[in-house]
Amino acid sequence: MKKKTIKVGLLGFGTVGGGTYRMLSTNAHTISYTTGLSIEVTKILVRDLSKKRDVSAPDELFTDNPDDILKNPEIDVVVEVLGGIHPAFDYMEEAIKAGKHVVTANKAVIAKDGPYLTQLAIDNKVILRYEASVGGGIPILNALSTSLQANEFTEVVGIVNGTTNYILTQMAENDMEYADALKQAQAMGFAEADPTGDVEGYDAVNKLSILISTAFGVRVAPEDIPREGITNITKEDMAYAKQFGYTIKLLAHARRYRNTLECSVQPAMVPLGHPLATVKNEFNAIFAKGNAVDDVMLYGKGAGAMPTGSAVVGNLLEIARAYAFGTTDRTIPTAVNDNVNLQFDGEGQNMYYVTLLAEDMTGVLGKIATKFGDAGIAIKSFVQHPSTKQTGRYVPLIYILGETTRDRLNEALEDISGFTFVKEIKSVICVADLDR
Amino acid sequence: MKKKTIKVGLLGFGTVGGGTYRMLSTNAHTISYTTGLSIEVTKILVRDLSKKRDVSAPDELFTDNPDDILKNPEIDVVVEVLGGIHPAFDYMEEAIKAGKHVVTANKAVIAKDGPYLTQLAIDNKVILRYEASVGGGIPILNALSTSLQANEFTEVVGIVNGTTNYILTQMAENDMEYADALKQAQAMGFAEADPTGDVEGYDAVNKLSILISTAFGVRVAPEDIPREGITNITKEDMAYAKQFGYTIKLLAHARRYRNTLECSVQPAMVPLGHPLATVKNEFNAIFAKGNAVDDVMLYGKGAGAMPTGSAVVGNLLEIARAYAFGTTDRTIPTAVNDNVNLQFDGEGQNMYYVTLLAEDMTGVLGKIATKFGDAGIAIKSFVQHPSTKQTGRYVPLIYILGETTRDRLNEALEDISGFTFVKEIKSVICVADLDR
Repeated sequence: MKKKTIKVGLLGFGTVGGGTYRMLSTNAHTISYTTGLSIEVTKILVRDLSKKRDVSAPDELFTDNPDDILKNPEIDVVVEVLGGIHPAFDYMEEAIKAGKHVVTANKAVIAKDGPYLTQLAIDNKVILRYEASVGGGIPILNALSTSLQANEFTEVVGIVNGTTNYILTQMAENDMEYADALKQAQAMGFAEADPTGDVEGYDAVNKLSILISTAFGVRVAPEDIPREGITNITKEDMAYAKQFGYTIKLLAHARRYRNTLECSVQPAMVPLGHPLATVKNEFNAIFAKGNAVDDVMLYGKGAGAMPTGSAVVGNLLEIARAYAFGTTDRTIPTAVNDNVNLQFDGEGQNMYYVTLLAEDMTGVLGKIATKFGDAGIAIKSFVQHPSTKQTGRYVPLIYILGETTRDRLNEALEDISGFTFVKEIKSVICVADLDR
Repeated sequence: MKKKTIKVGLLGFGTVGGGTYRMLSTNAHTISYTTGLSIEVTKILVRDLSKKRDVSAPDELFTDNPDDILKNPEIDVVVEVLGGIHPAFDYMEEAIKAGKHVVTANKAVIAKDGPYLTQLAIDNKVILRYEASVGGGIPILNALSTSLQANEFTEVVGIVNGTTNYILTQMAENDMEYADALKQAQAMGFAEADPTGDVEGYDAVNKLSILISTAFGVRVAPEDIPREGITNITKEDMAYAKQFGYTIKLLAHARRYRNTLECSVQPAMVPLGHPLATVKNEFNAIFAKGNAVDDVMLYGKGAGAMPTGSAVVGNLLEIARAYAFGTTDRTIPTAVNDNVNLQFDGEGQNMYYVTLLAEDMTGVLGKIATKFGDAGIAIKSFVQHPSTKQTGRYVPLIYILGETTRDRLNEALEDISGFTFVKEIKSVICVADLDR
């Protein structure tokens, strides 16, 4: 096998770009041993050439002109780690059209335009890979699309956002309010100054859209996925959850019933004995159910320079091996499944945890129970707590309700909140329907 | 992409063979959609043509003559699911020499002769794959050797035997003795009539040897791995473990310190908060630590017809894709790492849990503590339980000891068991040194 050097142009040198560069340097020996090839970063695109950087690289590698990479005939592979949609998408499109392989960590672009870019890569006989876009260092996309590919999947559910998982873990373990846990996450570098993208679930819907494409071969646009963030979760919810044997996680969940696909990103009660309940702090995990392999879960760090760099370099190695074996025409169409006509149908039925504050008087419980009954919603568990200084003359009522659609539940809750003795509906959180 | 049919000869039609055949039939549509190829089982080797089978296949597929597969020019891929070393090894060797790709689920052959067969496959320009040999349906070998390949691994630790994990889970959750849990496992089909291969760790050392080759690129023969089974674990050990915040799992563990590799298969105390502690019953999980990805864990069913069939078919799809892209010369050398000269050095240092029975009299604790101290072994935790009907006039002493080699511990325990007031050393179980 003759030695060859794969030349890489890096678009961006932030956290992931720096991690990728460091990993290529640190593990150069392992890489060249296992592939018989060396991978060399030839150019690095940055916005500001004079900026101080955490990871050092020779000055002559840096450029602020994208053409030095995109129009450079020496460069075999473009690694896009800029983030954001523009100009990242445009650069990737140009690179593919120029016959360059592309590796990206960009979940926003892949969730939005993955099918288009995949087809473009096939047409241009280049490889497009985006393992780092979901689950950081966890090789979930590769597993779903290679080793497990012969399975028909019925479910994919995961904790795919490290920021929210850190916050929820701190709330659960240290009895903290959301606002305090968020502040701590920001201080630790696990949350950004503006945390909206993470805590409102925008990051997670992008990742779920990519997982749905990969596992089910259908495209659901991120903006079509029912989405709810974690900002309304309270310390009390977490404590009540524990009493019922649950913890609360932000779950990205997609499930297939015959030809219908349900999906959502929302906080959900996860049974404490379930493997997803032990996924803590910045860790991510993705659970899939296939018709042969049954339950399989991959767990690891969903963000950070080196774990994400590991996924980027894993994709680079795949391209390097394709070179070694003389075939780089290997983009596999995963984004569209012509033969399975899955209907997208929102989030489906779930059990729900509901808490409300009501006056402590005779007949209240019966009237509420009747409203749930009229809506066809069963009460699975019920706990009434004594009133506290905070709740005043009202008492907290905590329900676990049987399966219902969110719409039907909302109608029933609207009726119930019309009762004069009901002060407010405090929390509505779905109970994850995990088959174990 | 022109359609092509990959013709497969199946050696064996037991649990895994039947599962593989069923999965190829059930998911034929998905397979041909995602690969553009169909995979067809052309011949099935069985010992007894007249035997009744759980999975049905057309009569004309069956043969009791291996040459109908090994010398059949039509057959592209041989799938070996016979188990055992002979004739499985001989058939694989012959198939590779005849230019056929080989997929196997055979951990015994791969642990023993993997490096030889890998080199033979490279020399004959065919693909050899054995994902199903470790962790059943869990795609751990593929993950370590593709997506995570650029990492230098420092640790691989896993629960790789479903039978022992089922038994230990039942002991922990239902307060059962080993013998009763074994009987239940046999009744449930999770343990064989002669359970020796599983409960004494022989199955696990084969799998650990394959994991070590894959993650560290060095070969340690299964018989050189320190091995201890679970037959001595008692109900009391499980109860004491819980009091200290642990559960007991049979761990296959390999760890690298600079150029030294330590490894063992033995029962170990796993902290209850660690993800490996939540791996229950017949499930398996493998945890790896890489220098970029950090901790990553893969979890799933480690045995059974369909999960193992999923791994076999995953390997078949890889071969099918190689056909589709016109390159079948793709066996990657993973079994020998010329450049890293790892020394194999037994099982290294561990903390230990030790229980013994001693007379309840003044000075006993001090004398025992002095012996541990003289051997340089710290006492991390200590509990004395009251005597019971079973223990008579002796009281159980339960120690968690600081890091030591097993040899040094054994010397100290020999001294201690020489005291007249010590009735017996009851249990010695290592405490897993997991970095989280």
